[in-house]
Parts: sequence; C-alpha cells; structure tokens
Amino acid sequence: MARIDGRNNNELRPVTITAGFVDFAEGSVLIQCGGTKVLCCASVEAGAPKYVPQGTGWVTAEYSMLPRANRERSRRDISRLKLSSRSAEIQRLIGRSLRAAVDLAALGERTVTVDCDVLQGDGGTRTASITGGFVALALACRKLLEQGTMTKDPIRHYVAAVSAGIVQDELLLDLCYSEDSHAMVDLNCVMDDGGGLIELQGTGEGRSFTIEEQRKLVSLCSEGIRSLIEKQKEILGD
Amino acid sequence: MARIDGRNNNELRPVTITAGFVDFAEGSVLIQCGGTKVLCCASVEAGAPKYVPQGTGWVTAEYSMLPRANRERSRRDISRLKLSSRSAEIQRLIGRSLRAAVDLAALGERTVTVDCDVLQGDGGTRTASITGGFVALALACRKLLEQGTMTKDPIRHYVAAVSAGIVQDELLLDLCYSEDSHAMVDLNCVMDDGGGLIELQGTGEGRSFTIEEQRKLVSLCSEGIRSLIEKQKEILGD
Amino acid sequence: MARIDGRNNNELRPVTITAGFVDFAEGSVLIQCGGTKVLCCASVEAGAPKYVPQGTGWVTAEYSMLPRANRERSRRDISRLKLSSRSAEIQRLIGRSLRAAVDLAALGERTVTVDCDVLQGDGGTRTASITGGFVALALACRKLLEQGTMTKDPIRHYVAAVSAGIVQDELLLDLCYSEDSHAMVDLNCVMDDGGGLIELQGTGEGRSFTIEEQRKLVSLCSEGIRSLIEKQKEILGD
Amino acid sequence: MARIDGRNNNELRPVTITAGFVDFAEGSVLIQCGGTKVLCCASVEAGAPKYVPQGTGWVTAEYSMLPRANRERSRRDISRLKLSSRSAEIQRLIGRSLRAAVDLAALGERTVTVDCDVLQGDGGTRTASITGGFVALALACRKLLEQGTMTKDPIRHYVAAVSAGIVQDELLLDLCYSEDSHAMVDLNCVMDDGGGLIELQGTGEGRSFTIEEQRKLVSLCSEGIRSLIEKQKEILGD
Amino acid sequence: MARIDGRNNNELRPVTITAGFVDFAEGSVLIQCGGTKVLCCASVEAGAPKYVPQGTGWVTAEYSMLPRANRERSRRDISRLKLSSRSAEIQRLIGRSLRAAVDLAALGERTVTVDCDVLQGDGGTRTASITGGFVALALACRKLLEQGTMTKDPIRHYVAAVSAGIVQDELLLDLCYSEDSHAMVDLNCVMDDGGGLIELQGTGEGRSFTIEEQRKLVSLCSEGIRSLIEKQKEILGD
Amino acid sequence: MARIDGRNNNELRPVTITAGFVDFAEGSVLIQCGGTKVLCCASVEAGAPKYVPQGTGWVTAEYSMLPRANRERSRRDISRLKLSSRSAEIQRLIGRSLRAAVDLAALGERTVTVDCDVLQGDGGTRTASITGGFVALALACRKLLEQGTMTKDPIRHYVAAVSAGIVQDELLLDLCYSEDSHAMVDLNCVMDDGGGLIELQGTGEGRSFTIEEQRKLVSLCSEGIRSLIEKQKEILGD
Repeated sequence: MARIDGRNNNELRPVTITAGFVDFAEGSVLIQCGGTKVLCCASVEAGAPKYVPQGTGWVTAEYSMLPRANRERSRRDISRLKLSSRSAEIQRLIGRSLRAAVDLAALGERTVTVDCDVLQGDGGTRTASITGGFVALALACRKLLEQGTMTKDPIRHYVAAVSAGIVQDELLLDLCYSEDSHAMVDLNCVMDDGGGLIELQGTGEGRSFTIEEQRKLVSLCSEGIRSLIEKQKEILGD
Repeated sequence: MARIDGRNNNELRPVTITAGFVDFAEGSVLIQCGGTKVLCCASVEAGAPKYVPQGTGWVTAEYSMLPRANRERSRRDISRLKLSSRSAEIQRLIGRSLRAAVDLAALGERTVTVDCDVLQGDGGTRTASITGGFVALALACRKLLEQGTMTKDPIRHYVAAVSAGIVQDELLLDLCYSEDSHAMVDLNCVMDDGGGLIELQGTGEGRSFTIEEQRKLVSLCSEGIRSLIEKQKEILGD
Repeated sequence: MARIDGRNNNELRPVTITAGFVDFAEGSVLIQCGGTKVLCCASVEAGAPKYVPQGTGWVTAEYSMLPRANRERSRRDISRLKLSSRSAEIQRLIGRSLRAAVDLAALGERTVTVDCDVLQGDGGTRTASITGGFVALALACRKLLEQGTMTKDPIRHYVAAVSAGIVQDELLLDLCYSEDSHAMVDLNCVMDDGGGLIELQGTGEGRSFTIEEQRKLVSLCSEGIRSLIEKQKEILGD
Repeated sequence: MARIDGRNNNELRPVTITAGFVDFAEGSVLIQCGGTKVLCCASVEAGAPKYVPQGTGWVTAEYSMLPRANRERSRRDISRLKLSSRSAEIQRLIGRSLRAAVDLAALGERTVTVDCDVLQGDGGTRTASITGGFVALALACRKLLEQGTMTKDPIRHYVAAVSAGIVQDELLLDLCYSEDSHAMVDLNCVMDDGGGLIELQGTGEGRSFTIEEQRKLVSLCSEGIRSLIEKQKEILGD
Repeated sequence: MARIDGRNNNELRPVTITAGFVDFAEGSVLIQCGGTKVLCCASVEAGAPKYVPQGTGWVTAEYSMLPRANRERSRRDISRLKLSSRSAEIQRLIGRSLRAAVDLAALGERTVTVDCDVLQGDGGTRTASITGGFVALALACRKLLEQGTMTKDPIRHYVAAVSAGIVQDELLLDLCYSEDSHAMVDLNCVMDDGGGLIELQGTGEGRSFTIEEQRKLVSLCSEGIRSLIEKQKEILGD
Repeated sequence: MARIDGRNNNELRPVTITAGFVDFAEGSVLIQCGGTKVLCCASVEAGAPKYVPQGTGWVTAEYSMLPRANRERSRRDISRLKLSSRSAEIQRLIGRSLRAAVDLAALGERTVTVDCDVLQGDGGTRTASITGGFVALALACRKLLEQGTMTKDPIRHYVAAVSAGIVQDELLLDLCYSEDSHAMVDLNCVMDDGGGLIELQGTGEGRSFTIEEQRKLVSLCSEGIRSLIEKQKEILGD
C-alpha cells in the first residue's frame, strides 16, 4: 500500500521550524509538519500558581484551532462559551510534556505559558504543538539568560513528539489527516533526547491492538522523534 | 517496600459492584475500588447525534466529582462556569472506551449516556468509572432486550480498566490516592476480554520511563483487568 | 382514597439516615425517605464571607440533582452553563433553614457548606435535604468539638422538614412524586424541636387554598417533623 | 412603637399604578409602593413551551433589579455571567402567582412574559411585582380581546400580593426596607379576589414563629391585599 | 418631504430631562427624547481600576435595553449569557464620551459608573444616554462637592450628543426609529460646549457618503448639540 | 518632528498581502502593515440568517487577537468567558464595512464569515483587517465563480481602510502602536474605490478636535486608501 503522499511507512512529513515568527513573545516559532501549521509562542510572566512550592516556577500550555484551520469552519470557543473538550485534553498533554523538559526550581518563580494556535490542521497538531512548543520554550529561556534575569538554563533535555498509527493493518509514522481519519489504531508519543518516554497515548478506533503492535508503534515514533530533535537542535544551534 | 495498605504489588484493592443502586436509570451500579466510590448510570434516549451515520447509535460519557469527594472540598463546575479540564479529559477517555465495547449499528438510533459521578475519590476514579460504566451499559442493553425494543445485544465484548505505576522504583498495580500522589510514572490501561488494548495512557511525572518499564506496567494491568472482568461477569451473570 | 403506597394520610415514608456515608467530609449522611436518596456532606472551611460580622461564621448550602436522579435524564447545569432556577431556589431555602439551627457567633470565623446531592428523587428532595443536612451539619460540629478546634457546640436546636399537600381534596403528609404531581396544594414546612416554624412555603397548583386548609397542612407537617427529629436524635445519640 | 414612616401597623404604603408607562408592551404599568418602583411589562408572543399541553398557553415572569435600584450599586448579572439566585427564586414565585390568575386553555397557544424590572427597591419588590404584573397581564389580555385575536378573556380572577412581618415583636403590614432589615419574621402572601391563598412564604430570620403568629400575619396580608385589588380594579376600570 | 412627526429637518425631538428620578444613585436623570426614554444613574465608588495612574479616578458606562424597550421583546443578555455586541459597542462610546468631560486627576481615586438603561427605544438611544448620562455625572459630582468629600469640581466642560442622517437624500437631525430604519447614512456626533468634536461615528448603510455630506451632517449635529447643552444647563442651574 | 520609523506624515507603512496563506478557507490572506500581521480567512457556508430577506445572503466578520499578539500576553476570551468588548466593537465595524462591498442579492443564500485573527498587533489592526478581509472575501467569491456555483460576482466595489491621527499636533497617516498610544485624536476611515466614505470613526483622546482637523484627517486617509486599493488590485489581478 502506497501512502497518499508517497512517503515510506517510517518517514516523517517535511518539517520546517521558523523561529521568531512573531516579535513580542519571549520565544516563538511557526512549525510546519506537512500541511499542519502551528504558531507556538512562549510568554514569561512573573509569579507562579499558588499550588506550586515557593521559589519554583510553572510551565503551562494553551491550545486552540483558528476557526478555519480545518476543511470546514468551526465556531470559536467563545461563541459557544465553552472550551472545546478536545482542546482541554490536548492542552493538558502539551503542558505535562513541556513541564517534563524543565527544572521548575531553576526556572524560579515564573510562569511560562506556551500558546499553540493551529493556523492549519492536517493531522498531528498536538504533536507538532509539543515539538514546536519546546523550541519556543527553549528560546524564551535563552532570552532570559541573555538578559541576565536568569542565571541557569532550566531546560533539562529536549522534548519532541510524533504520532504513529495502523491503517489497513500497516504501521505508519506521522499520520496526515486523511490517514488519521481511517486509522484503526492511533498512538501519540512524547520522548526526550535520551529516548525516554514522557507521554504515551494509544487508542483503538475500531479494533483493539496487541502489546506487540503497540511496541512497534512506539519504536516507529522513537525513530521519528530522533529526527525531530535533530531539527530542534539545528534551530537552537546546539 | 510494603504498600500502605499491605497489598502485594500485583494486587487489586477490594472491588464491589452493586447493581441497581438507583432505580430510574436503564442501568446503574455503584462501584467501589478500595476507598473510591463511583455511581455509574446508563441512560438510553432515542436519537443519535447528527455526526453519526444514519441508523447507527452513539455511546457517550460524563464524569464529575461531587464537591466533597476529595480530602478538600472543591467548587462545583457550575459555580466557576467551566467544566474542569481534568473532567473533560476523563470523560472523553470513558466515552471512547465504552464505545469500543459496542456495535453501534446494532444499537440502532439510540444514544446511551453513561454518567459517572464520583461520590468518593481515593485514586483510580477514571478506571473505576470505565469498569463500572461498562456494567451499567450492559445492564441497560439487557433491559432493552427484555423489553423487546432491541433484538440483538450490541455489546461486543467486556471492557475494564485499571492503573499501574512506579513508586520509588517499584511497579505497583491499582494505585490508591496516597501512592498515586508519589508516583514517578502512572499508566492507565483499558482492555477487552480478549486481552486487546483499547486505550493506553502513560505519563512520566518526574522522570521519563523506558519501553521495558512500560511493557511491565501493561502486563501488571493486564492481570488486574482479567480479575475485574471476572467481577463484571459475576454481576452480569455470564 | 387509598394512597399509592398504602400509607395513612398522616404517615411518613420509611426514613433511613446513614451517617458517615463518605469519609472525607467533616459530616456526611445518606438520607432515604422512601424512594428519595440524598447525600448530604458538611464541609468546614476557615474564614467567612465578607458580608458577615467579624468573628462570626456562616452556613450555606448547595443543592443539585444527579442527571439520572429522575425518571428522565436531565442535562447537567454545566452543559447549559446555568444553575437551574429550581436548584437556586431550593438551595437558598436549605441554607436559611440550616442557619436557623446555628449560633453563628459560637461557630466562629468558619464557613460550613452543606452539599445536598440528590442521587434519586421521588418527591420531597428539598425537605429530605434539610432533615439530612442538619445531621451532617451537627456531625461536623461534633468533629470540631472532638478535635478541640471549637469549644462550644454552635447547634442551638434541631431542624427538620417535611411536605404535606392536598390531593383530590385529601390532606396527605409527605407526598411521593406521583402524589406530588397531582397535588392541588403543596406545602413545605421547616420546624425546630420546639415546634417553632422556621420556613413555610405553600403553593396552590390549580386552585387556591383556604387559611383553614393551610392550618391543617401545617399541623400534619408538625406531627411528621416530630418523628423526623426523633430519627435525627437516634443518629446523633441524644 | 411608631413605624418609621408613621403608618399604622395594618396600613399599606401609598400605592400608585401608572398604566401604559411604556408604549410597545402589550400591557405595561409602573407600580410604586412607597419608595419601591417596578416597571412591569407583559409581552405576548405566539407559541408555547413544549412542556405545555397542545392548544394551551403559558405565562412566565422575569425579575431583575437595575444596578442602582439599591443603596449600593450592584453588578449586573451579565457581568458575573450568573442570574442572581435571589432573582431566580423571585421570578419563579411571580410566574407561579400570575399563572394562577389565568385560564391557560383560554389563553391559547401564546406565551405571555411579564418582565418586572425594579427601578428602585425599598422593600416588597417581589410583592409589588406580582400586584403590578397582574395589571400588566390583564391589560395585555384586553389588548388582544380588543384586537379580536382572542375571543375570551383568560383572566380568571384578580391576584395581588403583600408582605407582613414581625419587628420587635410587633406585627406590621407591608414592610419597607428599613423595617424588613430588622424583621424577625417575614411573610409574603399572594391571594386572589376571593381571599384564597395562592402562595405563602414565611421565614424566621432570627427566631422561629408560632402557628398563631403566622395566622395573624396572613390575616394582616389579607386586609392589605383587599385594598390592593381595589386599586387594581380602579386601573382596570372594573 | 415631510418628516413623519412634522418636524423641520434641523429640528430636535422634544427633550425632557427629569433629575432625581431615583433616590439612591449619587446622580440620576430620566431623559426623554421624543419616544426614547433612558434612565441614567451615576454611582460613585471608592477606588479606581489598576490600569489608571495612582491618585486619578475613572469614569465608565454600562448600557442596556430592557427586554420590552422595543417593538418586539428581546431576550435578556443573561439568558443568552452574552453581553449584546451592540451594547458592548455603545457602552464603550458612552464611557469614552463622558471621560472626555472629566478631569480624572481632580476626580481622585474614585470610579463613577454611569448606568444607562433604556426603558423605551425609539431611535437615538446612544446619544440620549450620553446627553442624559452627562447630567447624572455632573449631579453626582455636585453631591460629592456638597458633602465636602471632594473639593474641586472635576467637570471640565459640558458634553452632549445627537445623531443626524440622510433619508431619501434629505439631511435630517435627530432621527427617530422609523427614520433611522430607512436611513442611507447615519452619523452620531458627541461635542463639548466649545463646539469641539469628541466622538464622530458615521456609517453608510446602503450607499457611501461624500466628505461634503459628512460635513453638513456634522454641522446639523452641531446645532442640535447647542440646544441640548442649553437644556443641560437649565437642569444643572448654570 | 520626525516619525519614529522615519516616515513622512502622509506615508503608509510597508504593506504586504500574501494570498492563500492557508489552504482550506475559500479565500485567505496574510496582511502585514508594518509590524501588524493579520490572518484573514473568508469561509462560505450555505444559508443565511433568518433576519435577512429570502434569497439574499450575508457577510459577517469575527475579530480576535492571539494571546501574544501584543507586548504583554492577554488572556483568551474563553478563559474569561467573555468576548472582549473591544473585539465586539471591532468585528461589528469590519462586518459593516465588508457588507458595503457586496451585493447581497447577487451573493444568494450564502453566509460569508471573514475571520480576522491578529497574529501580531502594532497599531491599525482593525483597518488592516478590513483591507485584508476585503481581499479574502473577493478571493472567496472568485472561487465560487470558478466552481460555477455562483454566476455573477457580488463584489460591487473595492473597500479598504486606514487610520490617521494627531500626535503632538501633527497630522499623521497610519499610526503605529507607539504613535497611537500618544495620539490626541485618532480617526479610522473606510472608503470604497470611488472615494466614498463607508465608515468614519473619530475619537478625541485627551482633547476635542475641530471640524477642520477632522477634514484634514479624512483627506490624509483618502490618500492612503487609494494606495491600499492599488495593492489590493495587484493581488486580485485587476
């Protein structure tokens, strides 16, 4: 079975990360993974939520799709007065993933909010948000280091994410929208640069899956994430 | 390391499932897993959402904690005018898990809503909701069969769920709240009675985890789920 | 005319009050009045609203029905983003009734919130909430006395409530749902253990009622409340 | 004890009812009871809610205080995104009271909404809303009769309301705000022109009250309501 | 072309300003411009928003239409949980216009909220709100001066507003509703007593308009505002 | 006085309009005016609001700023559950301006929603939204013409917008943020390609302005809009 865009089963879509896409955020990137485009902005504010130990900081994320990011226009959250449940689920995932990258004590009493706004969605928007959001977060930390308001880089390791899935019983890396909509199994993986798992979410969407299938999907993702972290390093100049 | 309640590492907390805890729902159970108590009610209504193919049905779930289910009182969603993001994430998980148990075409143009209201929360409320919610759902289907308004049981297989985690580098099944709050890794597993995976969600909460650790956690869960499905069969008289 | 459940006109439904139904609330009971089941939890928190004189406390109540407490499933308040007007009216009644039982100065700068969540509603949920809520409130006060964080019991007297109504021109105590839905007059009565009236709410639902009828309904309620207060005393060991 | 405004204990405040205060509503009055001013507008719209039997109509009410109706400015409901619980309770009372005045079958498939907006509140706003709202409702019905769109007047009888209370152990009719804020007992009474009770709500606000006290308060109200209905008849030309 | 109410093209509708329409607001007026009636209440509260320089005050406005101010009943904002966008636009205009009248430093750390509630709307409600709101604001300032809590009047100059429009190619001052609904161009003008422009909002509603037409419309408004400021001076006794 | 970016007083900032910035919208552009970047997407949907005459269509706009479009991060509307009043005002302006460009009868029973999302705001976001939104709208109409689903182009004329203001008594075209924040007078102008005025909004922000000043500001805008329409024509290939 050939993939719709001719990729090999273990091949990522073309990835572009444009740093500094907007000027005001402490760190910002536009990440494109194939047809998916997400603007990730990291904003640093003084203070931390009260449920965090004194002296430590916090990293959180917000995720939203612009109304016409998809094939059909969707209504804005504000017009329905409800945060979409899907967005709520995704922004919790992004937040947990990015916090795993950071030494919150080294961050100090600051809150970094990483806004991930999907300009165009063609599958994999949550993983693109994590991969791009990490770069925005790292850029924001650098800015604080350069300004001298922070003395130690709180970034502990790189974090990136990708999805894999089973479509017509083939295991495919980095599903685009049309593949995703036919997937029987869909798995999102977030890893660090040591290959450690940070988040793993697998869903059977028409059938269940075996532990062996799950292992192979994680393995596919692991490869993909290695490449994505290479991209991140290029941008960050490491 | 002994567990706080003296259990073996691969031992479930005591589980009680009381069918028919309330009278009006087509199916209802009170499930208790140790100190966790969840009231699960399955309500059947005519009609299905418009995004579902004609002639097929839908299964959805709502999850909520009563204000004093926890050690501290929490405000009701309605007083903040926002569904808690945690509840939004959990009810999506329950809904996907229970839909996987059902042949939606056989269900016909009906919507089953499974309300999972946590009366007391001591860890594992989302997995208890799935395990109990499945029984409520199955009871509701039986009622329709008995009434003759449905002719074929739409339940395809049993579904149950449990968590496992790593606490002080020990792998433990079915974390209670005090274990969960110290866990380094937390993994929720939803499986069917054939041992197939339906949902898998793993999170590193202080460190990442290896693929090997993940495999062992799934294996622990797999054992636990087998026992839970035995319990479900007792109640359902299979 | 025989009542649907064979009771005498001046007879209460069977009442069961289970103390300590949940573990975390300072005071909790499950009260059952016939088919009506309400979980009442009293939570004590430091501080009082700013509209209360300094040094005194406050008692408030919240009331809600679980979605499938009734014959038909109702949507959650949060999905409509509005507290049901009926719930708003009822929780104000419960709050006023329970405050009448308490010496707010003796309570000190604390707020007690009594959550009344109806698990099953078969008529008389507001009066069951008051009768059960009083016990939860008294249990919470005892806990503070035992802990030594409070030195004087702020409970001034017992408070309980019941309804009476006119159905087909017969005066009946403690209407169940099917009686209530045909009642021409419906009256709710809250009284203390001295037989004093705290709240009185009567409604003509199809015809008006005379002062004489009203007097007889209050008299019926008065009898019922005496029995309910006996029940409360048993639980509280007075 | 002399009353603050020199009235006798069984004396109403001066009442003025100005019909047609605004032009567009089918029926409108400005009612003034002492310092309390409420604008009552009855709007007739085609159709009835779906929970009403086919062919019959509905009467409902909305109640709101303008931000500066009181001694201190209060925030608008919309700025808190919540209907005040007090308003919710009151508008349910007004709605029930006015429905009792109407033969809903004779009204036909129409909905009459009676908006009661308090321009200035000096005690007794809910009872003034009922007394004024009835006149607005009756005027709206007359308009439909005159237009020939309705053939039979659906008004069954007059409805008016007043409060009475116990202040320093004296029983007083029609409490103004400064009396009300010191009342030990407060009772609102809605009656028809035959002296029948439609709604009765009594509250002990610092002490309980006896059945005898309650009887006397109803009796006081009964007198007051007779006078109010005289006023209504003058306006309506009966 | 004769105007619907026989006015000359450059003639205002009859204007009545009733000071002290309600008792509690620091300043209040009922302004009537033809069939338009707006209740304007200025409330003074201690403190100023945090975005205002320390020591200076703030003036803000809220605008709302009562449900039956118009030919058809409209739902209350709270029942839709949304401030109407039209109201949002208008109250920003009123707030800006009234702030222009005030020396915020002389006002001191106070916030004046001017509530403009339209009791009846027959065109020109936003300009009537500004003209009436100014008087309420000035009356509130006088009250503070009389009480001695403020020593210098912060009012810098008079502010009033009116609309003009083009209907069937005729330029008309102060459009009533039926004119406004056929206007091709509609222009609102806010001016001070020196003839200076404070706000200018012109809209082509079916065709565009020329700079010359715009100039003439402003000139018409200028005349009208001069008369309105005369009226304001009468009320304020200047 | 030299402008902060060295421009002449009557000089626009550099303008770039990138058509087709996202793939799914029927028409989309990214417009950049100096540091201001707005993504404008026109979405065409079948049907029209019920308040529009049958057979005719509707054009509406939504405007929003991404959280980090500004120097400081702002909270999303959904987290405050309120559409920002400023956004409400602006999107009404954009909607009116774009409707003026369209023959709604020729559009047929379709609704075009033009979403204007500000990625970066450096002054003039509302006028950039109109100028860019017009191009998105025109592109969407062309797409329908090419598809043959519409037979006549409903665009009647070009529409563009710009601001001018008075800063330290100098009249400047196209204020950037730092100029705007010191402006004494700020005026927004929307015009068609015949030089006709569609919308005009002027505000004195510290002093009033004269009719002569206003005339000169409109004249400055008129020049600027001519250039902007040239840019639009380049993109649209006219």
